[in-house]
Amino acid sequence: MVQVNDFTFSGLHMAGNTSNVVGSRVTPVFAAQVPGLNTLGISMARIDFPPWGINPPYTHPRASEILTVLECSLQVGFITSNPENRLIAKVLQKGDVFVFPQGLVHFQRNIGHTNAIAIAALSSQSPGVITIGNAIFGSNPDIPSDLLAKAFQVDKNIIYQIQSRF
Amino acid sequence: MVQVNDFTFSGLHMAGNTSNVVGSRVTPVFAAQVPGLNTLGISMARIDFPPWGINPPYTHPRASEILTVLECSLQVGFITSNPENRLIAKVLQKGDVFVFPQGLVHFQRNIGHTNAIAIAALSSQSPGVITIGNAIFGSNPDIPSDLLAKAFQVDKNIIYQIQSRF
Amino acid sequence: MVQVNDFTFSGLHMAGNTSNVVGSRVTPVFAAQVPGLNTLGISMARIDFPPWGINPPYTHPRASEILTVLECSLQVGFITSNPENRLIAKVLQKGDVFVFPQGLVHFQRNIGHTNAIAIAALSSQSPGVITIGNAIFGSNPDIPSDLLAKAFQVDKNIIYQIQSRF
Amino acid sequence: MVQVNDFTFSGLHMAGNTSNVVGSRVTPVFAAQVPGLNTLGISMARIDFPPWGINPPYTHPRASEILTVLECSLQVGFITSNPENRLIAKVLQKGDVFVFPQGLVHFQRNIGHTNAIAIAALSSQSPGVITIGNAIFGSNPDIPSDLLAKAFQVDKNIIYQIQSRF
Amino acid sequence: MVQVNDFTFSGLHMAGNTSNVVGSRVTPVFAAQVPGLNTLGISMARIDFPPWGINPPYTHPRASEILTVLECSLQVGFITSNPENRLIAKVLQKGDVFVFPQGLVHFQRNIGHTNAIAIAALSSQSPGVITIGNAIFGSNPDIPSDLLAKAFQVDKNIIYQIQSRF
Amino acid sequence: MVQVNDFTFSGLHMAGNTSNVVGSRVTPVFAAQVPGLNTLGISMARIDFPPWGINPPYTHPRASEILTVLECSLQVGFITSNPENRLIAKVLQKGDVFVFPQGLVHFQRNIGHTNAIAIAALSSQSPGVITIGNAIFGSNPDIPSDLLAKAFQVDKNIIYQIQSRF
Repeated sequence: MVQVNDFTFSGLHMAGNTSNVVGSRVTPVFAAQVPGLNTLGISMARIDFPPWGINPPYTHPRASEILTVLECSLQVGFITSNPENRLIAKVLQKGDVFVFPQGLVHFQRNIGHTNAIAIAALSSQSPGVITIGNAIFGSNPDIPSDLLAKAFQVDKNIIYQIQSRF
Repeated sequence: MVQVNDFTFSGLHMAGNTSNVVGSRVTPVFAAQVPGLNTLGISMARIDFPPWGINPPYTHPRASEILTVLECSLQVGFITSNPENRLIAKVLQKGDVFVFPQGLVHFQRNIGHTNAIAIAALSSQSPGVITIGNAIFGSNPDIPSDLLAKAFQVDKNIIYQIQSRF
Repeated sequence: MVQVNDFTFSGLHMAGNTSNVVGSRVTPVFAAQVPGLNTLGISMARIDFPPWGINPPYTHPRASEILTVLECSLQVGFITSNPENRLIAKVLQKGDVFVFPQGLVHFQRNIGHTNAIAIAALSSQSPGVITIGNAIFGSNPDIPSDLLAKAFQVDKNIIYQIQSRF
Repeated sequence: MVQVNDFTFSGLHMAGNTSNVVGSRVTPVFAAQVPGLNTLGISMARIDFPPWGINPPYTHPRASEILTVLECSLQVGFITSNPENRLIAKVLQKGDVFVFPQGLVHFQRNIGHTNAIAIAALSSQSPGVITIGNAIFGSNPDIPSDLLAKAFQVDKNIIYQIQSRF
Repeated sequence: MVQVNDFTFSGLHMAGNTSNVVGSRVTPVFAAQVPGLNTLGISMARIDFPPWGINPPYTHPRASEILTVLECSLQVGFITSNPENRLIAKVLQKGDVFVFPQGLVHFQRNIGHTNAIAIAALSSQSPGVITIGNAIFGSNPDIPSDLLAKAFQVDKNIIYQIQSRF
Repeated sequence: MVQVNDFTFSGLHMAGNTSNVVGSRVTPVFAAQVPGLNTLGISMARIDFPPWGINPPYTHPRASEILTVLECSLQVGFITSNPENRLIAKVLQKGDVFVFPQGLVHFQRNIGHTNAIAIAALSSQSPGVITIGNAIFGSNPDIPSDLLAKAFQVDKNIIYQIQSRF
C-alpha cells in the first residue's frame, strides 16, 4: 500500500557540492530516490554551477529533457545526429527554458559571475545519464587506447593523457 | 529544418497574474508554446500562488506530474482511485518535491505568508489540464443541474449557485 | 502456465445492484478480475441504470472508453479540457455507441422509463475509476473544507453539507 | 474543432447479415467509422451468428480482444504460439466474457439453437482483421499452390479446391 | 548486475537442420536465448532453406520483421488484412531486404538451386511465432474438424487429412 | 495504396566504401530508404570494416541494436551509464551476436586479417546515429574549445587539434 513518503523528496533548495573538476553537480530525483515515480514516465534533477562551471557533454539514453534556469545565465546546446551534427545553442537567462530531444548530446555552462541553478525534467522515471568523457575515457576497464586514437584521429599519447584524467 | 527558437521559451522567472478567484496562475510550457517538444513526451509549467491562493483540484488526462517548491510552503495532495479514495497529502517546504500519478485528482495551496512558486514537469508534450470545478460546474453548455444535484447529493439550488460562479 | 480460467469471466448478463444514491452500478472486468488481461491493454465493464439513474461524473486516469447502449436510452457526455470546457453530449438509443477520450470527465444518465444497460470497453487492463464526487468530497481523510469552498466558490457550509453525504 | 458526431455510431442493436458461407457477420466500429477514436487505442465490433454459424479462425495484427456473449452460447478458443500450439477453449453462455491475447489465432462458433450475438472490444483504434482462410487461400493474387501444398502437406489439388472457394 | 554473457549468443553462422517436412529451420535469438534483450524491443533469427524449402505462412503476434537474404534467392510475400487480402510479393536476390508489417501473414521460399540463408530482425524481444498450419491444423487439442471444414469450405475428410499431417 | 517497392531495398550484399579515416562504412536501411518501415519500430544496417577498421564510439538516440558478425572477427563493447561506466566487451567470431541497449555508447573494431561484415538491427524505423567524435569535435558550429578542454580535462590546444580533424 502506497505511503506519502513514496511520492516525496526533500532538499532540492540546497546547492549541490560543485568542488570537482568540471564545476557542476547534478542532484537526481529519479525512481531510485522516489519509488512512487515507477511507471510514471517522469523524473527531475537540480543542477548547480559555480561561475564557469560546466555540465560536460552528456546524453540520457532513455529520456528527453526540459531545463529551466533559476539563477544566473547558462550557455546551453545540443548536437543533432549524423550527418548534420548541427549545434543548436543559446545563452539562457534566468527564466528561460530549453529542450534537449531524446538521446542527443547536450551540455550547459555558467557564463555569469554568480552561481547558476537549473531545474531539469526528464521523460522517464529512470532516464540514465551518460557523461561522454566518463564513458569514452573513463570506463572500467578502459576502451583500448589505439581504438580511441583512431576514433578521435589523434596520437595515442593524447588518449593516454585524457584517460589519465578520468 | 529545426531552428533554435523551436526549443526555447522565455519569461518563466516572472510571476503570473494571480488576481483571480482561486488565487493562482499556471504558466504552461507545452508543445503549443514550444513546438520542439512535439513527440518528446515532456513539458512543464510554473505555478504562482499568493498567500492562501489555491490551485484547485484538477487532473491531467494524459500525464503524470512532478512538482518542486521554489518559494514558500505548499499544502499538496492527490486522491487515489475508487474504491479507496485515499488522500495522500503533505505540507511541502522550499526545495521539496512531490509526485502526482497519471490522471489522479490533485491540488496545491499556499499556506505561507508570502508568494509561493512551484515548477511542475509533466510526462507529455500535451498533457491537458482539467480543472474539476470548470469541467463540472462551468462547462459550455452546462451539465444538467438535476444530474449534478444527484451526483453530489444536494439540492438543485446549490448546484445553480455553484454553476453561477463559473 | 496459462489456464483457460485466466481468460474468462461469468455473469455479465446479470443486472448489478443499483440500490444506491446515484442509481447505477458498474461491474468491472479488469485485470483484477481476469488475470489473463495483464499487459493486453484492454478491459471492460457492464453498467446498469434504473430509470433516472446516473453514472455520476468520473474519469479513467489511464484509459479511453467506448460505450454501447444495450437497453433503453442514455444521455451521455464528456467535457473537454481547459480552457474550452466544452460539453460534448448526446442522447443515445439502444445500439448507439459513444467514445470518451482518455482522462476526460464523463457521465451517463438513464432518461428512459425502463432499466438501461450499457457495455463499456477501456484501453487499459487496469484503467482505474475516479468518481469526481467521491474524490473531491468523500476522500479519506477529507480535503480541507476551506480549500474546497474556494475551489468551488461557495460558502464552507455548503462544502460541509456535500462532504456529509459522501 | 471536434463535433459530437466524431464520437458516435448508431445501429449496433441491429443484426448483421449472416447469409454467407461461414455464417457470421462482424460490424466494425473502428476509427474508419468513428474518427474520434484516432489515437485513443480502442475500438469495438458486434458479431452475429445464426445457429452453427462460425467466425472462422482469424487474428488482429495490432490488438488484443475481449468478447462478451449477449445472446445464446458460443464455443470460443485461441491457439498459443509455437512450439506449444495449445488450444485454450471454452463454451461461453450469455454473460460470459473471454479474452484473446494480441495477435493470436482465435475463432467463435454458435453452438446453440438461436441466433448468437457478441460484443467485442479491441485494444487499437485500427486493429485490422485477418481471416486466415482469406489470407491463405483467397489472396489477390494467390499464394502459389505448390507452396501451400507443402505448407499444409497435402496434394496440390486439395489446395486448388480450397482456393476455388475463396 | 549484468554480465557480458547476458548480451551475447554464438553459432549463428551454422546452418540449422532443415530435415523436416517444410524444408526450413528458424534459429531464434530472442529474450529466451539472450536475457539482455529484455525490455529492449528487438530480437532476431537466422532462417535456412534447402532448394525449394519454404518457411510456411506465419505471423508474429507482437512484432514487425525485416529480412535480409544472405545467400541464394527467396520468393517472399505478405498478405494485407481484410477486406483486400492483397499479396505483396517479390523475388529477392542476395543482398535484398524485405519488410513484413506487424502481425501480417507472411512466407518465404527458396527458389534457387543452392541453400538459402536469411537473417531476420523483429521489433520485440519476445515476438512469438505462429505457424498458420500448426495453429489451425496441429493445435493440442484439435480445433473441431467440422468448424475447420466450414472455415475452409471443404469436406471434413480433407480437414482430417490435413490434421493428420500435423 | 502501398506498393511492393515501399517494402524493399537492394544491394546489401555489396561492401560499403571504407576508404575513410576510421575504416568502416554503415549502409543504413531506415525509413528514409524504405518508406514501408514507417510506424513499424524496426530498421537495419550493414557495417563493413577492413582489417583494423573501427566503427568509432556512437549511440542511437532512439533505439537498441542487435548485431551479427557475418565475416571475420569483431571486438565490440558498450559502456553502462553513470556512475559505473562499466565496459561490457567481447571479441565476436563469425556467427556471434551482441546486444547494445538503447542509447548506450558502443563501438566495433575488426581485429582480424580480412574484411569484416556485420548486420545490425535497430528497434526504431528512424533510430538516428550519433558518432561521438563528430558530435563533440565536429559539430557545426563548434562547441566552444574551452568548454571541451574543461570537459575532457586537457589543454585547449589538444582540443583544437582534435577539432581540426573533424
